[in-house]
Amino acid sequence: MTARYDVAGLGNAIVDVIAAVDDEFLLEHHIAKGVMTLVDEFRAQQLYRTLPRPQEIAGGSAANTMAGLAALGGKGLFVGKTKEDRLGATFADSLRTIGVAFETKMAADGPATACSLIVVTPDGHRSMNTYLGASRELDRSDIDEIEIAAAQVLYVEGYLWDAPEAKAAINKAIRITKRADRKVAFTLSDPFCVARWREEFRELLSNIDILFANEEEAKALFEASDFDAVLQSLRTWPGIAALTRSEKGCVIAHQNDIHVIDAVPVDRVIDTTGAGDQFAAGFLYGITHGNGLGDSGRLGALAASEVISHFGARPGQSLARMAEAAGLL
Amino acid sequence: MTARYDVAGLGNAIVDVIAAVDDEFLLEHHIAKGVMTLVDEFRAQQLYRTLPRPQEIAGGSAANTMAGLAALGGKGLFVGKTKEDRLGATFADSLRTIGVAFETKMAADGPATACSLIVVTPDGHRSMNTYLGASRELDRSDIDEIEIAAAQVLYVEGYLWDAPEAKAAINKAIRITKRADRKVAFTLSDPFCVARWREEFRELLSNIDILFANEEEAKALFEASDFDAVLQSLRTWPGIAALTRSEKGCVIAHQNDIHVIDAVPVDRVIDTTGAGDQFAAGFLYGITHGNGLGDSGRLGALAASEVISHFGARPGQSLARMAEAAGLL
Repeated sequence: MTARYDVAGLGNAIVDVIAAVDDEFLLEHHIAKGVMTLVDEFRAQQLYRTLPRPQEIAGGSAANTMAGLAALGGKGLFVGKTKEDRLGATFADSLRTIGVAFETKMAADGPATACSLIVVTPDGHRSMNTYLGASRELDRSDIDEIEIAAAQVLYVEGYLWDAPEAKAAINKAIRITKRADRKVAFTLSDPFCVARWREEFRELLSNIDILFANEEEAKALFEASDFDAVLQSLRTWPGIAALTRSEKGCVIAHQNDIHVIDAVPVDRVIDTTGAGDQFAAGFLYGITHGNGLGDSGRLGALAASEVISHFGARPGQSLARMAEAAGLL
Repeated sequence: MTARYDVAGLGNAIVDVIAAVDDEFLLEHHIAKGVMTLVDEFRAQQLYRTLPRPQEIAGGSAANTMAGLAALGGKGLFVGKTKEDRLGATFADSLRTIGVAFETKMAADGPATACSLIVVTPDGHRSMNTYLGASRELDRSDIDEIEIAAAQVLYVEGYLWDAPEAKAAINKAIRITKRADRKVAFTLSDPFCVARWREEFRELLSNIDILFANEEEAKALFEASDFDAVLQSLRTWPGIAALTRSEKGCVIAHQNDIHVIDAVPVDRVIDTTGAGDQFAAGFLYGITHGNGLGDSGRLGALAASEVISHFGARPGQSLARMAEAAGLL
């Protein structure tokens, strides 16, 4: 059966609220630097009021990846929960206008559409304070068997694991994908997320075909002290590991097929938000279009380099044209 | 047969003459930055007179590696040609006082002992102007079958290939080593050296068990545009490749056994002279003492980090103690 979608992404449907701040702001407002912290509605509202000149942009890790896939010319489906409110409409529009399919039923009541208050410091690091709201309400009934089975790859973000009902939804989606003989991809999302769910994520590995992780997440998963120890831990695992290392580039490892790929140099790093999401977009586009692991890794590195060169977690230009210019498409 | 030496190093016997200069000095004296340029006796003497406050230190790539091996507690033999002159005596003393065996007969006449005029710019890069003098005179008669066969590993520097008689000496040493069922290690030395001898070096690969190369040298050998292309070119080669990447660390590849190892951070890079030589010392010490490729690579990275933290191409302290403190010995 030919696949209607290249990738079906399952993730938290979140609207990002981004502001540029200095390190002092982080201290003053007790914001943990460089990571994602979950906050409740009260804390979210309180923080929101302190942000200087906030910009609202549809976000969410897997949704950003679907946006990147679309910017490369790929066909994506996003599955995630919003509410019928202003931010919910913003989120849905942001995907549909770029051609990403988004059919998940919006909640009529309950918590508001999720938002992530992202503050970016002058060093390009982003610190996220995420109110999960409606996105936590994703459940098994939101997983449409026909839609999920129509994608070459199911891509799941680890963040989703923080919502209990979402786990059941993920497991349903994985079963559908396996039954359809498609591939399951999973991203570890963030080192704290890994620390919260290490044992469950390790068990999940047996159902995963493609694992995305940055160096810190991978170290946390394998409780490894250095990168090479991660790589050696992965040697007995049969899947494909796409390990991102910021300015050190990435390593793609699939059993004995190992690629060490440099980061694509950028003039100036403006905001690292979305680097991992866009890496995943490039990599997934590559492998769903017949590219080898090396070239897929290079597409990922290219997409990541684009997104860190400007504010925001989604591509600011056609990645397909960039990739063509770089000889990768 | 147990080995009397861990490593027998074959290389140019050179005394380094080091001076700190600025980039303008390089321009004024037409010195190519960051590489080794061969010069004749006239140019060497002319440059020598212009150097501000030169320091004389015994050097030579393979000889430096033997010094590093000794600083780790290993047993090395050095084979290289000097003349019976002041610099020749300096060179011989520098090895013998640290316990490296050096029995090569000094020439009674002919060209003077080799020297390398090394200028170090404030960015830590070194530019070398080497007068090969007596070191070019190494020939087959200098290769002692019993001594060479008594080493676990024969280590040959690529620079030696620039002297025609030395090629015959290397080939004799390789035959002895193979007959004794020992290992042959080879370092590419410098990208220009690779460019001069690319085809011959590629043919030589079939006789090499361990290849040392930095990223630029390896790219030059395989005419590859990026690091991953080098790595993929090496996948069909049966030997061990130890590929150094400056601040990006190193990759050790032996068929399907691949290690990606970070550089050991240093407070400040003072002089990168000898980084590759000392990496080789640590790596060779590791594998001749029963360590795996990963730990041998980490020993190499540690030795390299020590030597770039001070002026000069040989260790400034006991590498054995450093390695113990780092849990590597």
